[in-house]
Amino acid sequence: MGQDKHPCYHIDSDMHQLHLTSPTQNPGASGYLYNPSTMLQVNCRGYASAVVMQPEPSRYSTSPVQEATTFWQPEKQYFAHHPGRFFYIKDETSKEFFSLPYEPVRQQGVSFKFTVGVDRIEWQIEHMQLKCHLQVTLDSELAVEVWQLNIENLSDQERQLSVYPAFSIGYHSWMNQSAKFDPELGAVLATSVPPYQQLGEYQKINALATNCFMLSDRQPQSWTANLSAFEGEGGLHNPDGINASQLGGEAANYETPIAVVQHQVALKPKQQYQLPVLFGLAKDKAQVKDIKQFYFADEQSLERQVSVNCQAARLKDLPIQIDTGEPMFDEFVSVWLPKQVDYHRQLQRLTTDPQTRNFLQDLIGISFLNQKRARAGILKAISQQAGNGALPDGILLNDDAELKYINQVPHQDINVWLPICLQAYLDEHNDYEFLTENVAFVDNDEQATVAQHLILAMDYLIGNLDQRKLALIGQGDWCDPMNMVGYKGKGISTWLSLATSWALQVSARILGDIDSQKAEHFGAVADEINDAVNQHCWDGQWYSRGITDDGKAFGVSSDAEGKIYLNPQSWSWLAGAAGEQQFKDSQAAIESYLATPFGNMILAPAYTQMREDIGRLTQKFPGCAENGSVYNHASIFHIFALYQKNQVDAAFSGLKQMLVSEHDAQTRQQLGNFIPNYYRGLVETLESYNGCSSQLLHTGTVAWFYRCIIEELFGLKGHKDGLLVQPKLPTGWENVSVLRRFRGATIRVDYQQRVGNKPNQLILDGKTLSSNLIKDLQPDNEYHLHINLYLAD
Amino acid sequence: MGQDKHPCYHIDSDMHQLHLTSPTQNPGASGYLYNPSTMLQVNCRGYASAVVMQPEPSRYSTSPVQEATTFWQPEKQYFAHHPGRFFYIKDETSKEFFSLPYEPVRQQGVSFKFTVGVDRIEWQIEHMQLKCHLQVTLDSELAVEVWQLNIENLSDQERQLSVYPAFSIGYHSWMNQSAKFDPELGAVLATSVPPYQQLGEYQKINALATNCFMLSDRQPQSWTANLSAFEGEGGLHNPDGINASQLGGEAANYETPIAVVQHQVALKPKQQYQLPVLFGLAKDKAQVKDIKQFYFADEQSLERQVSVNCQAARLKDLPIQIDTGEPMFDEFVSVWLPKQVDYHRQLQRLTTDPQTRNFLQDLIGISFLNQKRARAGILKAISQQAGNGALPDGILLNDDAELKYINQVPHQDINVWLPICLQAYLDEHNDYEFLTENVAFVDNDEQATVAQHLILAMDYLIGNLDQRKLALIGQGDWCDPMNMVGYKGKGISTWLSLATSWALQVSARILGDIDSQKAEHFGAVADEINDAVNQHCWDGQWYSRGITDDGKAFGVSSDAEGKIYLNPQSWSWLAGAAGEQQFKDSQAAIESYLATPFGNMILAPAYTQMREDIGRLTQKFPGCAENGSVYNHASIFHIFALYQKNQVDAAFSGLKQMLVSEHDAQTRQQLGNFIPNYYRGLVETLESYNGCSSQLLHTGTVAWFYRCIIEELFGLKGHKDGLLVQPKLPTGWENVSVLRRFRGATIRVDYQQRVGNKPNQLILDGKTLSSNLIKDLQPDNEYHLHINLYLAD
Repeated sequence: MGQDKHPCYHIDSDMHQLHLTSPTQNPGASGYLYNPSTMLQVNCRGYASAVVMQPEPSRYSTSPVQEATTFWQPEKQYFAHHPGRFFYIKDETSKEFFSLPYEPVRQQGVSFKFTVGVDRIEWQIEHMQLKCHLQVTLDSELAVEVWQLNIENLSDQERQLSVYPAFSIGYHSWMNQSAKFDPELGAVLATSVPPYQQLGEYQKINALATNCFMLSDRQPQSWTANLSAFEGEGGLHNPDGINASQLGGEAANYETPIAVVQHQVALKPKQQYQLPVLFGLAKDKAQVKDIKQFYFADEQSLERQVSVNCQAARLKDLPIQIDTGEPMFDEFVSVWLPKQVDYHRQLQRLTTDPQTRNFLQDLIGISFLNQKRARAGILKAISQQAGNGALPDGILLNDDAELKYINQVPHQDINVWLPICLQAYLDEHNDYEFLTENVAFVDNDEQATVAQHLILAMDYLIGNLDQRKLALIGQGDWCDPMNMVGYKGKGISTWLSLATSWALQVSARILGDIDSQKAEHFGAVADEINDAVNQHCWDGQWYSRGITDDGKAFGVSSDAEGKIYLNPQSWSWLAGAAGEQQFKDSQAAIESYLATPFGNMILAPAYTQMREDIGRLTQKFPGCAENGSVYNHASIFHIFALYQKNQVDAAFSGLKQMLVSEHDAQTRQQLGNFIPNYYRGLVETLESYNGCSSQLLHTGTVAWFYRCIIEELFGLKGHKDGLLVQPKLPTGWENVSVLRRFRGATIRVDYQQRVGNKPNQLILDGKTLSSNLIKDLQPDNEYHLHINLYLAD
Repeated sequence: MGQDKHPCYHIDSDMHQLHLTSPTQNPGASGYLYNPSTMLQVNCRGYASAVVMQPEPSRYSTSPVQEATTFWQPEKQYFAHHPGRFFYIKDETSKEFFSLPYEPVRQQGVSFKFTVGVDRIEWQIEHMQLKCHLQVTLDSELAVEVWQLNIENLSDQERQLSVYPAFSIGYHSWMNQSAKFDPELGAVLATSVPPYQQLGEYQKINALATNCFMLSDRQPQSWTANLSAFEGEGGLHNPDGINASQLGGEAANYETPIAVVQHQVALKPKQQYQLPVLFGLAKDKAQVKDIKQFYFADEQSLERQVSVNCQAARLKDLPIQIDTGEPMFDEFVSVWLPKQVDYHRQLQRLTTDPQTRNFLQDLIGISFLNQKRARAGILKAISQQAGNGALPDGILLNDDAELKYINQVPHQDINVWLPICLQAYLDEHNDYEFLTENVAFVDNDEQATVAQHLILAMDYLIGNLDQRKLALIGQGDWCDPMNMVGYKGKGISTWLSLATSWALQVSARILGDIDSQKAEHFGAVADEINDAVNQHCWDGQWYSRGITDDGKAFGVSSDAEGKIYLNPQSWSWLAGAAGEQQFKDSQAAIESYLATPFGNMILAPAYTQMREDIGRLTQKFPGCAENGSVYNHASIFHIFALYQKNQVDAAFSGLKQMLVSEHDAQTRQQLGNFIPNYYRGLVETLESYNGCSSQLLHTGTVAWFYRCIIEELFGLKGHKDGLLVQPKLPTGWENVSVLRRFRGATIRVDYQQRVGNKPNQLILDGKTLSSNLIKDLQPDNEYHLHINLYLAD
């Protein structure tokens, strides 16, 4: 919402930073930091959401109400008492105060800059002749936020200031919660007993870290740990505690805690004042002490440790870095995209039972970053396969993990993702030996090779076909909430039929050398499925989304809502079901019905009422999530499929539409540091919402985006025999270059694209190659590849 | 906390109203209204908590964050975005505004009066030369709050005002939530789809009412339904929406809703303006329409219906009304106590599986108010007894109800409560035929009489005794969180042993005529238990609380924490285990260790760390709930036991200590309209918290309080042969009178108490009686009983 009147957002590619100069025009704009245990998302106004895996997701800073245990929700709404990290700055002479970064005082007309970096989040605020710089980094391992405040006195007068870090702790337990200042630690320390009632839970809650602390390297002048006492009648925006000369020293005794301390400082003209604040979660007081010691042992400790934190947050040896002359695009692909892929790798979407579908697709991205982790991930998934071939709905990451939420609902598409993930892994790493590795089943100890597991998975999918060779949808497929199409046992999914077909074809390619008979069989079944889909699911201009239990096709032209879905079209191209005319028709239909300035919608028009023969999907808010948003995961399938059809310009335009630009950040209500799982779709009555970000950065999109970039756009794809070079540059590009790391080798690639009818040309370290398959690349070697591409006149 | 410097609370006995003249000195002070479906608690500042049973508890107005599903918690903490009902009042000439009742603007130095009545909650606020009267009643059946605002222009000038009702709706669903103004209904209407994922839940969520509406009898000038848009950068205390000339007409589209409308009005000097607002929950638009029609059909409809609501909230034909010359006490017993008892009757503590222990004790209170309901309740409990005699931990109120929360933990005391409840019922109603009624079991269809069910229940308790004849505690007794004393199968509970003894004795009395052999047997076992308790559980000055699995007595003088518990002492007197010296010693110990100005603590000193041989109780916050609060349910057991020991002054003083007075309301942080489940206990380091109310009005206390008043204090107790008169007036009383309704008869009783050694005298309608058992009282007749009591010199 809002228009691009006065852009206050810009990208600094040199510094890999994103800058926002208004706290009000893009209030949801946020940065995020993570380490192997912790995710911290902070918005430009100072509100923060933090999750620590121990190993189930837990929170040390919450709102003042008992919050539901739920998964990370899209379109988070902020409100005054949303957890945040604030610094009140008070001039003790005038008694005026303001707050950093913006909340809770919300001073207006102040010079403001919010900067999102890969390794830190920063603010620069100038107000009351004070120049303030605030930054946060995250400890490389622990749930410890490292805040550093610098204040410079810009005036000609000595200033008497009070500086009050004020960090939310929030409601933690109806059994026992309290907080107070611990003089020995020099910390506000909040403790709680996680609420429980059953005896068996005691050991579990006992194992949890529950000590939330805030400390600095020095003793404060005063403190309070009691939210209500701090606010008084003034409220969070004008707290009695700040208006008083000293904080009241109130503990929270079975009351809502907050951590606030007062540091008094006299600042000469131009003098600077530094205040570091550590905030986080610890097992006990001893650990708080250790952490304090670690960061403040000597004068250099803090900077040294912050530098370690920043190093840990910067990824090394990336599979691709690009220079295309489009800074926003280069920046996203080289910096932010791998970060988001790596975030998925490290924190598994903040759950201990990631959906198998997500887990396997995330591994496609992880595969580019870390072979070992990808291999282990695939093995973990396979080891949870049942003897009948079925992969579970969720992958249990540890022995105590349980299937929760959506994973308690059976979905029929799970097995599809195994060959798709496997192929990406095999292509990148050429680890075909992996297929011969032995793994047992979740329900029997019999060992079978990875290849055999794959065959069983495919046989299971074949077993899910009805007499027509269409895939039964049961209680859902990739689209979780499409839960009432086939729950009576008859309804089929066009998309799942096509996905089954493609999965069989991919499996056939993987298995070609190992079990040619099976491979042939899978290919034959895929053909039958394609035929069946064309016979039963082609609606004239596009493919339907499925056929309900009652035999009614949906996602068809006669539907008033949910007339056309994106996925069946894209996957008909992947599966090779669509003939050329069908491809053209269906792509034209996508352009007519699904296109928005921010990408294609997953379906349109969005449902506005429940369809009991489709299900929960139709109850979701119109234009959000699966109900007609620009659902980026579906968009990226479409883009990947466009590349398979050599639609290089349409595909590239799709990639760019997915990214936040300097000009549409305000409309999207997000910065260009991640791809959200969706943007709001175009709903007739809600036009102003089109493009609004979900703010949720858990999405299978990024793995596929990376794959599209590496394998398709720049055409640098792994192959059994080496590196297969098949660039699909947009026609507008002339000179671009990339750095590709591949199987240990480093290849600098320059592309030159010209109009002309000459054959393309590959020159490796000065030698013209006769093929586009580069063999014999040696690990640890560096290469220079020059590619001349020619566009037909 | 805080002292009685300047009492701002007073009780108006004539009007049955409680008045509070400050919004800041007792900020948690609240009133409550209820009907058979809905509970509404509103505090003096305008924050509100409402629950609708459909039939599981649900909320139509919440905070802006996804709240946990939990039971009603004690010591609720308020914060800016806690759900509330506010009216902003703006002078359109000066553009100044304030808000009723106090939040969110929090104008200071304003004339303020909060009035809690039985049938309505009111405020009078004078500010900016406007005299505002606000009141709320609750529809007699539906979840519809009826707010009525009256504003009088006190100035000599015509005033241009805008009046904005602003009611919280809050976060309802991540699937679908929205709100907007519906011009046809003239209502802000918010709808949502309750979040769910499993197919089987669809029917359930479909049955729920999810339309939250706010409407008036007239069309507003402008509206907004979007919290964030309403607040803008100003915040809830200074909303952009109010500062603008008109509200922005923003819907909430998958955003947090609020209901705000603007009514513009010109008021001549002394002119008054009335604005009614209905706020509540409806199944659909048609029901909203019906409700509007119902309240605003003609000019009299509103007042007529409000009068119906008030009538429904006033109880009729109460079992006792008293006049003792102590207005606060009279007022509480005659007005507020029966209301709280009836609230328990109607809403069953806002759950569909009340703990059996609570359910049966609540029936003691209900028994005085409504025989039919009490009888049906006991039958319902008995019908859920297992064939082996065990009553379940919770009573399922409907077929879909499930055992939740604490009812998933087994407790060994459940059966104790059956005879105790039964006796109270039989005493009041003389319905001994009830004992011959046939009821089946939950696990077999065999019919057994109520008496046989009782016998089985007692045999089950006997089966729970160990070789010493002490009762095994398993995972807990009356004290739920005492869950690790006996989970290994050996630990015993002193209290439960004594409770078993008393339950057997009570059963023996009930069964005397029916099964004298069993009665005798139960009496004999009770004696054995008493002996065993005296042998193993007497610690020298008081009874221990139990013996752990490892054979360690606890609640004993050698314990540093949890040295003494209240319940074992009181129940040793009830069970007759304590000899006279033991009674004196243990009462002296109570006075030494447990007494506070607000009643006796349940144990002391409170635990400050986990004891793994006692359990979860020791993890609760010190001084709260079971961990050393003045837990009123335990206090009332003690008072009841004191009455059995004829300690009339100590008992009466206990009753009075439990009630909020004009002088300690600020310390208790509550008004005198209910008994909370606890006041904070006296913890050495937390002295200022002693007496603070839990604000939670779900408690077994009130049933026993009623019983103490009727049967003990005024000694008007039912008996097989009539009304047994055994008054236990405190020695300070001289002339008191009560109105007792008993088995259909109405008896006006005057008590005269004098010092002297004459025998007591009962005069019924002028005739002196020879016994204190009044026989032959006829239903529908009125009697006058004069009682002369003499205190020994």
